[in-house]
Amino acid sequence: MSKTYYDSRFISKMDQRSRVNLINSLTGFKSVSLIGTINSQKRTNLAIFSQLVHVGADPPLIGVLFRPNTVKRDTLENIQSEKIFTLNHIDSSFYKKAHHTSARWNSSEFENCDLTPEYLNSFKAPFVEESSLKLGLEFKEQLDVKVNGTHLVIGEIMQIHIEENIIGDDGFVDLEKGGIITSSGLDSYHVTNRIARLSYAKPNAEPKEL
Amino acid sequence: MSKTYYDSRFISKMDQRSRVNLINSLTGFKSVSLIGTINSQKRTNLAIFSQLVHVGADPPLIGVLFRPNTVKRDTLENIQSEKIFTLNHIDSSFYKKAHHTSARWNSSEFENCDLTPEYLNSFKAPFVEESSLKLGLEFKEQLDVKVNGTHLVIGEIMQIHIEENIIGDDGFVDLEKGGIITSSGLDSYHVTNRIARLSYAKPNAEPKEL
Repeated sequence: MSKTYYDSRFISKMDQRSRVNLINSLTGFKSVSLIGTINSQKRTNLAIFSQLVHVGADPPLIGVLFRPNTVKRDTLENIQSEKIFTLNHIDSSFYKKAHHTSARWNSSEFENCDLTPEYLNSFKAPFVEESSLKLGLEFKEQLDVKVNGTHLVIGEIMQIHIEENIIGDDGFVDLEKGGIITSSGLDSYHVTNRIARLSYAKPNAEPKEL
Repeated sequence: MSKTYYDSRFISKMDQRSRVNLINSLTGFKSVSLIGTINSQKRTNLAIFSQLVHVGADPPLIGVLFRPNTVKRDTLENIQSEKIFTLNHIDSSFYKKAHHTSARWNSSEFENCDLTPEYLNSFKAPFVEESSLKLGLEFKEQLDVKVNGTHLVIGEIMQIHIEENIIGDDGFVDLEKGGIITSSGLDSYHVTNRIARLSYAKPNAEPKEL
């Protein structure tokens, strides 16, 4: 197959839209989920995010990367003021509605995009009823990236709401069985097919399919 | 379907292995790639990572999250000393070899796991010849997470080596066509099937399939 090579000079001279598509593709497949927040006036907000990272298991921590605050960022501002947010995974039955939350709405995305706010176990931020895997998180820390002004927000998982049939005896969650999807680039959505789970890697043996 | 609820008290009392499996599953599908580095003695290292995040397109930046330095972290130390690393996406033809790099090897994972180091365009860190999408990155910034001692390393993309047939006119990279896989939890690997690409979201119209 024929290969192409781009150097940093070429990248910097690309038209902006193509560069955004290209660079957003290069981190590979991403998770994609809806972040639910509420402001001090109890107004809800729902936004789609694909920049999530596992930060640690004990305490259980997730990081979300936010773009620079050059335009109004309701989600980030709500997390900073109310210190809580929900994270709701997406399946193919409502992915178009989830994508639609990224438009510039003047009122709550729940209503505008026909998704249902749900309040569970006294958590004050709204979950998404349609989602099969929902997390309630508490704000822990914000790190600011100097080189381009993005922000990494770290939350601790306080609540997990999950379909019982997708969680295994060993704690592994079968996202695929739950219909949870993955994304690539800015606008591409995909279902998955498992190749295998592999055994813990050791030097003296090839990894085995579990 | 029946739902299960875990609160933070339950999570903190889980046995460690189950908690690690569970929490590592909760960020959803992840990209998975091989990071190639070299130390000051020109010894190569190759390690599998799934904690990647897109940080920005201009300049083109990628973040990698590293666990705390409680055990020897060759990849992180090599990046800190040599200021360069490569990121090589994985397809199903060599995913078992890629997984095997996570064992505790005493010499280079390239040789031990039967993967081929490749040196391109004077970049000093090794790429993985088997990979259809390879990036050469230069270290830019390190952020330290206070709450659990993890580190976010940010690199700028200096080189892109890509199969010509997976890059579209609009810059979008068709990872699926390239056979690039996604991962979930600690040990599960998946191929993908596109549902659709969706149009840029606007309030006055439903997102359309492109």
